[in-house]
Amino acid sequence: MRIKILAIGKVKEKAYHKRIIEFVKWINRDVSIELVFFKDNNHSRLEKKVESHLKNRDHIMCLTEEGRELSSIQFSEYLFNKTNDIVILIGGPNGHMNSIKEKAAQIISLSKMTFPHEMALLILTEQIYRAISIKKGNKYHR
Amino acid sequence: MRIKILAIGKVKEKAYHKRIIEFVKWINRDVSIELVFFKDNNHSRLEKKVESHLKNRDHIMCLTEEGRELSSIQFSEYLFNKTNDIVILIGGPNGHMNSIKEKAAQIISLSKMTFPHEMALLILTEQIYRAISIKKGNKYHR
Repeated sequence: MRIKILAIGKVKEKAYHKRIIEFVKWINRDVSIELVFFKDNNHSRLEKKVESHLKNRDHIMCLTEEGRELSSIQFSEYLFNKTNDIVILIGGPNGHMNSIKEKAAQIISLSKMTFPHEMALLILTEQIYRAISIKKGNKYHR
Repeated sequence: MRIKILAIGKVKEKAYHKRIIEFVKWINRDVSIELVFFKDNNHSRLEKKVESHLKNRDHIMCLTEEGRELSSIQFSEYLFNKTNDIVILIGGPNGHMNSIKEKAAQIISLSKMTFPHEMALLILTEQIYRAISIKKGNKYHR
């Protein structure tokens, strides 16, 4: 299982960026992870660019407030239940493109609250790192 | 209405700390806010210290995963419905003290997921800033 995060919009806040890269490094010790950023501009070009990253057998997840909420333990079980590669999409300020949303196997929510997309990315990478810690039973998640 | 946040445990991560202080400054332009940190040590001493910050008429909220979830809009309405001062408690790694939990008017959850307590504080300050933005109708929260 490999994880690819597709994020629309840059992480402007340096403090978040540094921490996100740190979590990605830590995750990479156990699970291969790739983080791809897209500029939030021309809609149809963006759509094509995002789609070029999706393979037929990928398990696609979209993150949005209206999605299904999981506890950290359920999220860990959910990730490690998959054998296919996982692609997680974080929409920009305009949300997700419908064409991409339709391809998603699961719409997941981090919270009922609305977060800035860069904070959502920070939380997501922390939760993936936590998911590994839960799976391995080490003490980080306690 | 004034807001006081009582946080058990320090914010070790500098990146978060800087951002939290920034949100607190921004909040302070509109709503008087105070942030108090407690060392997570001797239980009964900590209990007394926390209690010394609580006044009879305060509206006390505890943050924990098992609490009631609100959307950002509901959280904004919830805060601005209050005339009494609001005290928000963020527990340390050992959660909340029962004596304090019993005094809480509301147990609120930011997410079903478990966050490090310093990330919870970051999210909370961002949500209070967002709550003000929603109340004022300015564009930050859009």
